[in-house]
Amino acid sequence: MNDKKKVNIAIDTIGGDNGAEVVVRGAVKGIEENDNVTVYLTGHKKELETLLGEYKYDKDRIKVVDATEEITCHDAPVEAVRTKKDSSLVVALNLVKDGTCDAFISAGSSGAVLAGGQFIVGRAKGVRRTPLAPLIPTSGKPSLLLDCGANVDARPEVLVQFARMGSIYMENIEGRKNPTVAIVNIGTEEEKGNALVKETFPLLKACKDINFVGSIESREIPTGKVDVILTEAFVGNVIIKLYEGLGKTLLSEIKDSMLSSFKSKMGALLVKKPMKKTLSKFSASNKGGAPLLGLKGLVVKIHGNAKEGEVISAIRQCNDFVIRDVSGKIIEGLSKESAE
Amino acid sequence: MNDKKKVNIAIDTIGGDNGAEVVVRGAVKGIEENDNVTVYLTGHKKELETLLGEYKYDKDRIKVVDATEEITCHDAPVEAVRTKKDSSLVVALNLVKDGTCDAFISAGSSGAVLAGGQFIVGRAKGVRRTPLAPLIPTSGKPSLLLDCGANVDARPEVLVQFARMGSIYMENIEGRKNPTVAIVNIGTEEEKGNALVKETFPLLKACKDINFVGSIESREIPTGKVDVILTEAFVGNVIIKLYEGLGKTLLSEIKDSMLSSFKSKMGALLVKKPMKKTLSKFSASNKGGAPLLGLKGLVVKIHGNAKEGEVISAIRQCNDFVIRDVSGKIIEGLSKESAE
Repeated sequence: MNDKKKVNIAIDTIGGDNGAEVVVRGAVKGIEENDNVTVYLTGHKKELETLLGEYKYDKDRIKVVDATEEITCHDAPVEAVRTKKDSSLVVALNLVKDGTCDAFISAGSSGAVLAGGQFIVGRAKGVRRTPLAPLIPTSGKPSLLLDCGANVDARPEVLVQFARMGSIYMENIEGRKNPTVAIVNIGTEEEKGNALVKETFPLLKACKDINFVGSIESREIPTGKVDVILTEAFVGNVIIKLYEGLGKTLLSEIKDSMLSSFKSKMGALLVKKPMKKTLSKFSASNKGGAPLLGLKGLVVKIHGNAKEGEVISAIRQCNDFVIRDVSGKIIEGLSKESAE
Repeated sequence: MNDKKKVNIAIDTIGGDNGAEVVVRGAVKGIEENDNVTVYLTGHKKELETLLGEYKYDKDRIKVVDATEEITCHDAPVEAVRTKKDSSLVVALNLVKDGTCDAFISAGSSGAVLAGGQFIVGRAKGVRRTPLAPLIPTSGKPSLLLDCGANVDARPEVLVQFARMGSIYMENIEGRKNPTVAIVNIGTEEEKGNALVKETFPLLKACKDINFVGSIESREIPTGKVDVILTEAFVGNVIIKLYEGLGKTLLSEIKDSMLSSFKSKMGALLVKKPMKKTLSKFSASNKGGAPLLGLKGLVVKIHGNAKEGEVISAIRQCNDFVIRDVSGKIIEGLSKESAE
C-alpha cells in the first residue's frame, strides 16, 4: 500500500449482457492496477465466490455483498429502484449512500442507474439536475457530451450548470487545461437556434469560468474540435444513439462489401489490422463509462455489453475522480455561480 | 412530344460550389430524359449562353433568364431575399410565383431557399408550416426525414401536418404503399419523451390516415425500418448534419488506415470497387434534393456541392411531383384533417 487515499468502489455485477464473469475479472485486474482501491461486488454471493475462486488476489480488497433481486431493462426504472430493495443495483447504491463506498459502477439498466443515482445517492449541494456525461470518440481526442440523461425540457440555468460540471470533469479527469465548451446548434451565428439555445447562449457568454466558444453544428462533433459539447438531454440522447447506430451500420455495410467477392476478400485480409485500429479508436471501451455528475458520490454507467476492459477503465476513472476530489471541485464551482 | 402534362422548372444556376457548368450539363441531360419538361435557367445570361453553346439540345425547352445579383451563404437569408430582387434565386422563385414555372431547384444558400420559398412562393391553403424533407440513405430503402428546415419550437399540430405531408410524398414519389411513420424519441415506450413528443404522440395515434408505428430511437434510423421519420426542425437538423459529418469522418479514418502501410495499400486496391458501391449508396446524389413541402409550387434544395447527377435527379423528382399532383394531394390530405 502507498499513502494514497483509500477509495472504495461498489460494482453491480448483475444486468450487464456478459454476466458477472467479466465484472469479476475486471475487478481483480482493477485492484491490481490501483493499489489504493477496494471493490465491493454486489450480486449472487455463491456465484461471485465461485468466480473469484479462480483468481489470486488480495482478499482484503474485494468484498462480496449478497443481493437476491435483479433489475432488468424491462422493469420500469423508478418503480424498480423503489421496490427492489435487495437488487444488486440498489444494494450497491446504498453502499455509496451510507458512506461505505465513494463510487458506483453498473452495466445494468440506464434508466434504473439514473433514477437510483438521484433517489438513493442524491444530488450534491447546489446542483439543480444531474447530467449523464459520456465521452464520445472523435478523430481527435474524445469530447464530453452532456446531457445524455433523462433531464428533458431543461431550463437555460440548468444547461449552464452542466457546462460548468463538464468543464471541471474534463480539466481534472482528462487533463484538458481551460476546456472549450460549445452548445449544439443548427447554425454557428449567435442569432440562430431554438428558444432554449437562444436563452442559454448569452448566459454562457457571461460566465468567466467557462471557456465558451459558441455554437457547434452536429456535423462538426466527430472532428473533436471542442472539449465539452453542451445540449439538453433529448438532443444529447439523439446524438449519442445516432453515433452508435450509424457507426455500426456503416461498418457492417463496409464489411459486407469487402466480403462480396474473392478479390475483395483477399483485400480485406490485408486491410484488417489497420482498420481494426481505427474502429477501436471509435469504440468507447478504453475510456471507462459515462459519469452521472453532480451527485453526493460518483455513479458511472458502463455499456450493457461492457467487457473486462471497460470495467478496469471505469475503476481507474472512479479512482481518479475521488483522488482528485472532482465532486468537491464541482460543488465549489457551482457555489461561485450563486455568489456571482 | 407525348401527351404528358408540360412541366416547367426554374433552376437557379448561381450559388452551388461547382458553378453554372454542372447545372447546364444537368439541365441538358434532364430535358433529354424528360421530354415533357422545359427548364428556365436563371443567372448570368452571357455565361449561360456560352455554356449552352457547347451542347446540342431542343432550344425551345431550355430558356435563359438573366439575373445580375448573387446571394451567397454569407448573406442574411431573409434580408437577402427581400433586397436582392435581381438575384438568380429570387428571379427563379418569382417564375414559380407568377405561374410560369411549377417547380424550383437551387444548390444555393439553404437559408435563402427556405426564406424565399415561404415569402415568395408562399404556403398552400391549410398549411401551417413548410417542412424541409430530405431522403436519408439507410441500409435498406431511403427514409424521409422531416423537418430539417427552420421551423424550430414547432407545436404538436404542426408535426401532425408534417407526418401527413411526408406520407403523401413517400406514397406518390417513392411508391411506398401506406408508408410507416415514426416519431424520433429517447425510448420506445409511449410514456417516454419530452413535452412535445408526449403531446404529439396521441394526436398521431388518433389519425386514421397516418400509418403511425410509434417511437424510433435514433440508433435505429440508419436501418431504414420506417418510411417517414418525424421530428421537429432542431432535432432534424442535428440528425441530418451528424449523419453527414460522422459518415465523412469514419470513411476518412478508414481510408487513412488503409493507406498506412504498403500491405494495406495493396488491400485497399482490392476492396476499392465494392466499397465505392457501398459509399455511393450512402451518398444522396442519386435521390434528387430535399423538397420544401406545403408551398404553392415545389421548391427543391440540392446540395451545395451537387454535380450534374443530382441536377438530373432533381429534375426527375420535380417532374414526378407535378405529374402526380403531389401538391394537390397534400392540400386534399390536410383539408380532411380540418374536417375531422
